Amino acid sequence: MARANVAGSPVRRAETIAEAPDPQQLIAAARRGHRPSLARLISIVERGGDDARALGKLTHSLGGDAFTVGITGAPGAGKSTLTSALTRLMRDEDLRVAVLAVDPSSPFSGGAILGDRVRMGDHALDEGVYIRSMATRGHLGGLALATPEAIRVLDAVGKPWVLVETVGVGQMEVEIVGAADSTVVVVNPGWGDSIQANKAGLMEIADIFVVNKADRPGADQTRRDLEQMLDLSASGPWRPPIMMTVASTGEGVDRFWGAIQDHRAHLTRTGELERRRARRLDEELREIVVARLEARVGDLCSSDRYEHIHRDVMDRRLDPWTAADMLLAEG
Amino acid sequence: MARANVAGSPVRRAETIAEAPDPQQLIAAARRGHRPSLARLISIVERGGDDARALGKLTHSLGGDAFTVGITGAPGAGKSTLTSALTRLMRDEDLRVAVLAVDPSSPFSGGAILGDRVRMGDHALDEGVYIRSMATRGHLGGLALATPEAIRVLDAVGKPWVLVETVGVGQMEVEIVGAADSTVVVVNPGWGDSIQANKAGLMEIADIFVVNKADRPGADQTRRDLEQMLDLSASGPWRPPIMMTVASTGEGVDRFWGAIQDHRAHLTRTGELERRRARRLDEELREIVVARLEARVGDLCSSDRYEHIHRDVMDRRLDPWTAADMLLAEG
Repeated sequence: MARANVAGSPVRRAETIAEAPDPQQLIAAARRGHRPSLARLISIVERGGDDARALGKLTHSLGGDAFTVGITGAPGAGKSTLTSALTRLMRDEDLRVAVLAVDPSSPFSGGAILGDRVRMGDHALDEGVYIRSMATRGHLGGLALATPEAIRVLDAVGKPWVLVETVGVGQMEVEIVGAADSTVVVVNPGWGDSIQANKAGLMEIADIFVVNKADRPGADQTRRDLEQMLDLSASGPWRPPIMMTVASTGEGVDRFWGAIQDHRAHLTRTGELERRRARRLDEELREIVVARLEARVGDLCSSDRYEHIHRDVMDRRLDPWTAADMLLAEG
Repeated sequence: MARANVAGSPVRRAETIAEAPDPQQLIAAARRGHRPSLARLISIVERGGDDARALGKLTHSLGGDAFTVGITGAPGAGKSTLTSALTRLMRDEDLRVAVLAVDPSSPFSGGAILGDRVRMGDHALDEGVYIRSMATRGHLGGLALATPEAIRVLDAVGKPWVLVETVGVGQMEVEIVGAADSTVVVVNPGWGDSIQANKAGLMEIADIFVVNKADRPGADQTRRDLEQMLDLSASGPWRPPIMMTVASTGEGVDRFWGAIQDHRAHLTRTGELERRRARRLDEELREIVVARLEARVGDLCSSDRYEHIHRDVMDRRLDPWTAADMLLAEG
């Protein structure tokens, strides 16, 4: 049905509109399955600024139904292959899926990450799958703030499932992926060495562990290591299951998909989904306030008036604290 | 003369005042040589808050004559011994000296650093020397902001020379000491290994290098290494001299003191002193603005009103950006 729309009149109308993109019209077109409109919406988020903000106001009021799954792990762990295999299973159940690949280390986007990931090409002709990589261009607050906004867009245009994948396991990646409803940490046999530095951070955010490339030597040992670490961790009502997969052959991916559904059911049943989202929104709100204030410092300290005030402080006609007050009173 | 004041009437009056310290009266007493008043003034700076700010307004208008020398180097390099030997030479010329020992790693102060530095005890009975260690207690912006305020106090009470000594060579120490008029980096023979990580930062801020413990093997090699690094660095009108000292015997300290005076004369002659102070004030002003704004975030996001706004965003009656605007409009 979505495919039929590509040649239908609503979409052609959206293509014309795209010349002077109005967020509301872009959203309407994207909801009807027009991919270029959705791509433009994500680009607006990446660029940040007033347009992103206006878009965010719209999408925040429209969304709320999407469930997000964050997938992180060391480079080479097989996150993309796993995401692709998972997507295939979800498509078999006719679920619409959006994949957002986030790369905090790259200023480029729009395919930079996924361009070379040929296997994601499996879904290239499937209208039920939308794949997009994202980096920051000018977004104030960086990807930590841009990612929830991009998720809002995907939510608002009617994507019920959003998979957020990152390229690495640094602090920033953990932050980005930890902002999902369910967080999946992908490791390989013998994982310990590669991500030692951030092990504690990963243990804290993981809702599901995946030992991918589980056909390699050491897979069982890795599983035991993880079980042991979980034994030592503070236990809550949900103990992260450890899934063994070989994403390249699809082995174990069905059980992994089952674990995601189990976790979602657990979150909903216990009210934890609502609490997590409230906590995330709290963090996002604080980050927006901080980013807004930081931008102010730059503006305040680059004006002509600043030069004047600085001179007065140098000449001791004014003290630094009164000067700061004068600058802040303006901003 | 200062010593006579201790038993004189102006000081006794200050001691009474000290019960309810008024910054203006504390400054007046400290100017007359009353040490407890000066100690109270520095403590006000350490504690931060409104009192520190009111004090800063006063001291900023009063000062401007002190010349500050920052002394940094790895723990054990002999900074305290060198500072003490330098102080002795300055006292021989009847110069009044204040020593501020700053420890970014410690929340304690008021002698914590210098308590075990028995050699500084050489100056304990000398009214012309004031020694004080400093840490942050509650100062917003930390020692990076508290140090210039403490220097202002010492300047305002009439100390013409302020030596600022730090305990280590981390980034924070470099920042603190780099805020002095002249910056001295103390190394030992074979220094390379101990401070490798921050070598570039030290090369950038050093106006004078001291190879202390120069009677040890490898001193000449260390000197050659430093010369070579200076050859490779961008050359300006001032090439940092490399002084060889044995602070414990006093050897070479007279030439080191000569180098400080040379650098001061160079700074004054070229107008660089004025430019450096303007740059420092610019940095300080920005830091005050940032600290003020950061404090605001904490206040804004802990009010009852915040809870209410957060709930409205959760329920999508309000978007996060409008919510941030509402919070910022209050602050």
